[in-house]
Amino acid sequence: MTYDESDIALSLEEVAALSRAALSRLGLAPAHVEAVTATVVAGERDGCASHGIYRLLVCADTLKSGKVARDAEPVVDDRAGGVVRVDARGGYAQLSFQRGLPLLVEKARRNGIAALAINDCVHFAALWPEIEAVTAEGLVALAFTPSHAWVAPAGGTRPLLGTNPVAFGWPRPGEHPFVFDFATSAVARGEIELHRRAGEPIPAGWGIDAEGRPTTDAAAALDGAMLTFGGHKGSALSVMVELIAGPLIGDLTSAESLALDAGAKASPIGGELVIAIDPAGFLGGEAAQHIARAEKLFDAIVGQGARLPSQRRFEARKRSLSEGVRVPRKLYDDVRALVD
Amino acid sequence: MTYDESDIALSLEEVAALSRAALSRLGLAPAHVEAVTATVVAGERDGCASHGIYRLLVCADTLKSGKVARDAEPVVDDRAGGVVRVDARGGYAQLSFQRGLPLLVEKARRNGIAALAINDCVHFAALWPEIEAVTAEGLVALAFTPSHAWVAPAGGTRPLLGTNPVAFGWPRPGEHPFVFDFATSAVARGEIELHRRAGEPIPAGWGIDAEGRPTTDAAAALDGAMLTFGGHKGSALSVMVELIAGPLIGDLTSAESLALDAGAKASPIGGELVIAIDPAGFLGGEAAQHIARAEKLFDAIVGQGARLPSQRRFEARKRSLSEGVRVPRKLYDDVRALVD
Repeated sequence: MTYDESDIALSLEEVAALSRAALSRLGLAPAHVEAVTATVVAGERDGCASHGIYRLLVCADTLKSGKVARDAEPVVDDRAGGVVRVDARGGYAQLSFQRGLPLLVEKARRNGIAALAINDCVHFAALWPEIEAVTAEGLVALAFTPSHAWVAPAGGTRPLLGTNPVAFGWPRPGEHPFVFDFATSAVARGEIELHRRAGEPIPAGWGIDAEGRPTTDAAAALDGAMLTFGGHKGSALSVMVELIAGPLIGDLTSAESLALDAGAKASPIGGELVIAIDPAGFLGGEAAQHIARAEKLFDAIVGQGARLPSQRRFEARKRSLSEGVRVPRKLYDDVRALVD
Repeated sequence: MTYDESDIALSLEEVAALSRAALSRLGLAPAHVEAVTATVVAGERDGCASHGIYRLLVCADTLKSGKVARDAEPVVDDRAGGVVRVDARGGYAQLSFQRGLPLLVEKARRNGIAALAINDCVHFAALWPEIEAVTAEGLVALAFTPSHAWVAPAGGTRPLLGTNPVAFGWPRPGEHPFVFDFATSAVARGEIELHRRAGEPIPAGWGIDAEGRPTTDAAAALDGAMLTFGGHKGSALSVMVELIAGPLIGDLTSAESLALDAGAKASPIGGELVIAIDPAGFLGGEAAQHIARAEKLFDAIVGQGARLPSQRRFEARKRSLSEGVRVPRKLYDDVRALVD
């Protein structure tokens, strides 16, 4: 990590205070301020620049669009034995997740496997904070959410699918969990935006133009469609995310979310599905020894010079917890301007 | 589909009879003969050449290795509310799946979500027959299984992961289900074998040699390691499959399966995880209208000229059900030789 002299050094407490001040000024109810701030701090702490205080600027734009219920009180619905639904009532997903988590954990422990559906929420950031909250309970976690229809299916020509992340977590005793959280699009949409601003071409395989032809022109890809990672396999996964975090839980597909947005360019609205699995549900008292056996797999990955998916993030976390973080002055000033 | 004049035309009943005769002659107990035959017929019927009667030859080799319990009687264990385990006791997976399915379906209907773990089974073929058995009950299905350690993790140099398929199914009223079932390796191992036999180079991205260097030499890749599809994302998914269909259910990783094989070149042994989700568990009486809403997504995919994942397979099925199938004479003769 290289520091620009003009970077601003902040402790994580200062990041939290800045986030609280900005979100309060933007009119979010106190419970939402706390829930969203936890995500902002986690993003900045883990070196995920686009999910840290930068996200407060995105949030400000989305709030201006009038698409977020600032004081929505989530409604928890205890459904079938293994299912909990939380109606976010148009608010950010974070508070709904917090409210639904205890019941998800209880159901997973009782049944071995359980699902939490968050409905009618505004998506704020990545799924790994949710994943880590589940693995912290000793449970295995999966999470999915559609977004806006920016991505073409493999073999197609027009945007239909969201960037549709798939996230997974595995608890590791005494270690950070094994966690991945990736978009099923070839890259994040923001990455193509950055190339457009810089006037740089994008690599082949990221996008197609409005006529469905492969393009390396960033602006043409933004006007056309993004592509999925991994060809037809990534495309199939993306469709799965549409289905299981959309109609399965009674919520929007990415195409429906984008239609609802009606050009406001606000954050996607819709559902989120989190699945929690308790190893003890399969293995009873023998669970611990099998969880321990999984460590050999991680050792073998790292031992051959490969990285675990969230390794960089956990390294940044360690550094941030002792040294705080540094943010670009321009970004800091822009966020401060939300408060002043 | 082009037919060679020397192809043998068979009705699906004849395929079934051939499979039954071969498997009986190979010493499989009658219940296993029926269960495996259903999979062989499904593979041949759906135009999946490598999962049809060809698989009987693989089966014969695996049985010769002594790695399959020919008369294993599966033991069904009704666990926590949402979990059923079936101990295959070293037999083929198919019969265990059949024996566990009713309880999986019952638990999914009662709890909204449930899981079936098959332990200590020999893997016979693809996962889509299991997926379709679950979607036929109106449930959403996911399935995972490790294999043998032939694939290197992204950034690594040595084989550690299996070809580790991920399969998914979504019930469509009045239509074939939406089903995908793909290896998380870039290609099937058999594909690289075919290139080796033909003396043809493999495309970049399929494999690395024994020193971990990218290679287009099929033999070098078979001696080295296969690669995952989609770079670090496919690799992360593959690790997930190792974990949730391995230690989570108290079963082998692909490395452990290959070690157990000890050079016998038999089919992988280990576990299989199937998750079933009931839309009614989330949506109650409103499930049908949301399942119907998903059709818009499929229409939009097909409407822009893209294909649904199993479209070719369902087209082959339609043809086979009316016309039967044709198999190469050499393959037919080799399979007949198992019987005569």
